[in-house]
Amino acid sequence: MESLINCTEEQQPSSVMTNSWSNQEACRSQKAKCAGGFVLVHAGAGYHSESKAKEYKHVCKRACQRAVDQLRAGALAVEAVTAALVELEDSPFTNAGMGSNLNLSGEIECDASIMDGKSLHFGSVGAISGIKNPVLVASCLLTEAQKGKLSAGRIPPCFLVGRGAHDWAVGHGIPPCPSEKMATKFSLSAYKRNKRKMELAEKMDTGQNQTKKRRQSSENENGSGCLDTVGAVVVDSEGNVAAAVSSGGLAMKHPGRVGQAAHYGCGCWAENVCNMNSYSTAVSTSGCGEHLIRTMLARECSAAMQSEDAHQALLEAMQNKFISSPFLASEDRVLGGVIVLRCCRCVEAQPSPNIQAAMVEFLWSHTTESMCVGYMSAQDSKAKTHISRLPPGTVPGQSLAIEGGVCRLMGIVD
Amino acid sequence: MESLINCTEEQQPSSVMTNSWSNQEACRSQKAKCAGGFVLVHAGAGYHSESKAKEYKHVCKRACQRAVDQLRAGALAVEAVTAALVELEDSPFTNAGMGSNLNLSGEIECDASIMDGKSLHFGSVGAISGIKNPVLVASCLLTEAQKGKLSAGRIPPCFLVGRGAHDWAVGHGIPPCPSEKMATKFSLSAYKRNKRKMELAEKMDTGQNQTKKRRQSSENENGSGCLDTVGAVVVDSEGNVAAAVSSGGLAMKHPGRVGQAAHYGCGCWAENVCNMNSYSTAVSTSGCGEHLIRTMLARECSAAMQSEDAHQALLEAMQNKFISSPFLASEDRVLGGVIVLRCCRCVEAQPSPNIQAAMVEFLWSHTTESMCVGYMSAQDSKAKTHISRLPPGTVPGQSLAIEGGVCRLMGIVD
Repeated sequence: MESLINCTEEQQPSSVMTNSWSNQEACRSQKAKCAGGFVLVHAGAGYHSESKAKEYKHVCKRACQRAVDQLRAGALAVEAVTAALVELEDSPFTNAGMGSNLNLSGEIECDASIMDGKSLHFGSVGAISGIKNPVLVASCLLTEAQKGKLSAGRIPPCFLVGRGAHDWAVGHGIPPCPSEKMATKFSLSAYKRNKRKMELAEKMDTGQNQTKKRRQSSENENGSGCLDTVGAVVVDSEGNVAAAVSSGGLAMKHPGRVGQAAHYGCGCWAENVCNMNSYSTAVSTSGCGEHLIRTMLARECSAAMQSEDAHQALLEAMQNKFISSPFLASEDRVLGGVIVLRCCRCVEAQPSPNIQAAMVEFLWSHTTESMCVGYMSAQDSKAKTHISRLPPGTVPGQSLAIEGGVCRLMGIVD
Repeated sequence: MESLINCTEEQQPSSVMTNSWSNQEACRSQKAKCAGGFVLVHAGAGYHSESKAKEYKHVCKRACQRAVDQLRAGALAVEAVTAALVELEDSPFTNAGMGSNLNLSGEIECDASIMDGKSLHFGSVGAISGIKNPVLVASCLLTEAQKGKLSAGRIPPCFLVGRGAHDWAVGHGIPPCPSEKMATKFSLSAYKRNKRKMELAEKMDTGQNQTKKRRQSSENENGSGCLDTVGAVVVDSEGNVAAAVSSGGLAMKHPGRVGQAAHYGCGCWAENVCNMNSYSTAVSTSGCGEHLIRTMLARECSAAMQSEDAHQALLEAMQNKFISSPFLASEDRVLGGVIVLRCCRCVEAQPSPNIQAAMVEFLWSHTTESMCVGYMSAQDSKAKTHISRLPPGTVPGQSLAIEGGVCRLMGIVD
């Protein structure tokens, strides 16, 4: 048995955080016992107006609390991360589940995925309609796949889309939800506004050739205002990590469009510590799905996190593998954000042989105007939340913000 | 202008091939001029009976010819690879396009994707019905995305699924095809046979618990008989590479299931030579979609191909990143195959300054019982085909076969 005795948590300027981790000998690449665990969530990389800041922070806080409730009850990381996502999806303010962006036909189609760092299994749904919590379908796919083969030796699916995904979900006990209940007053009025703008843009372009038309309209509308994909990363008391992501996708997307939130390696990534990895890592992304798919940002950030200096590694990954990625050479603005968690057992920090210490480093970085995050350890009484913004004078899509903190977790080993 | 003067092509035992490439100084990491180009296709990693061997070889031959016709007419790699795929999809013997496996509901739902090594753009469709050539939709998505943003600054999709993908295709001039025309006598009778087997397996398992049921049935049926995803890799006369893949998916899959053929980094990969890469590489995969997704096999093989020894690199990638992958630790048999092409300019081999030489190395490897491949350079009068089989006494899913060849292309630079 293990009981919680202490947790020191501090959000520091990244440079301080980095220094606190410079002595890598203190950390051994063993499975960390994380004394209750830790969660980091995001309510999207995009633009968060001051007027709605309170709401965004509030939903992040609730999502952290949901995950921590699970962790305290002994749940695994994959269960806790699902709980956080359900809360984020249920908020009408986020672009996931309830209140998702409407597509070109005025319908809601959602993407979601989840990865378990322990089993390395992955579950994902794309362009699913009529399900209030797409993450529950992704999670159920992951669980079912772990049970082994289906009848007649068939391999269970890890990725389902569209109507088939909906029917599979309902067949596995996830209740359907009438589509009209998932749209909110806000999402419906945004749809009407976007539709008018689109029609106006197309009307203005009449008579011009396609290339010109596309170039002229590229500066409008597709700001970072509607990219509020949500996600979370968790480490549980056993040191297992998990990551999840959920999105309603880009506003006015074509029906059937699937973004990074359903794409392996792009929306989320989680890998427990193993022979090849010194750290357990978990990543969840947000932003323009096409940019995040073509750069496989979740997996790239996870791989980068095996470097000694977490802050420097994420900075370089965001700069070289995202903003300056050769895969996005033709893009003028590269819009996205990530939350990252890495964890290892710290032998040096252990006050006695029967007390185990683990270090959790958590970071977020984005090229969008802002990103709303929340974080909490199982020893905290409440979550901390933060709206990160690009430094004044910098250009969204070409610059980045990066921040983070360290959380030391300790527990008695019985 | 460049005209074709010579091509030496030889399929050799891999060890010989490897030796012929040991002097890496002969090859410079510059963009290769490939004197007409080269294509390598596969009609799937699975099981190819002797009785159908002729048909499989014949379709590979025709697909090579289609690509070479394009290359000779000055087409880019991405156009030539599309032409090869259309031919492979049109064959009723392959599990792609016409004659695809039927899903659990007796419907055909196809996946396909394409990647252009020059622009690094990617187009993909998943679970698409009623389109005879899914690769044409993937290719059209790629082309459209290269044109830049849509009206009102919307980002064009790179991945569409289901009904939305179908409607987008028809809206972009790709004709619909009644689903009943895509099923063949063979695919319909296979569906009925599989359905009976499934019902029997489920009946036999009645009264046993779910875990037992799954374990007991895991040895049946899901051999490598129905994994005939098709694909191709091409290098054109300018040294650009492209890769594509197309699949009807696993027999009796759940509706909406999407396999590796639609998944970025998993079904195909292509990257032209650049500052970071000494070689242009292109890869296409085949086999169990879930295994190929979770190992991102196409991208892993492409990355491995930057090593000096192509044969050794592919051998290690197939062994360490596929058969022994930690991502598939719970799988007893890991079923898949790849075709790989890499290309570089060879300064040493140039007889005079106005003659450019390029070396194309091409390989295939599989853990399934067999894999059918074909290859041809633009200087050849006809394609060579081969059904590769696992060495006698080895176990599918646990062992591998690997073979390949070298093609030297030369052309006059005007």
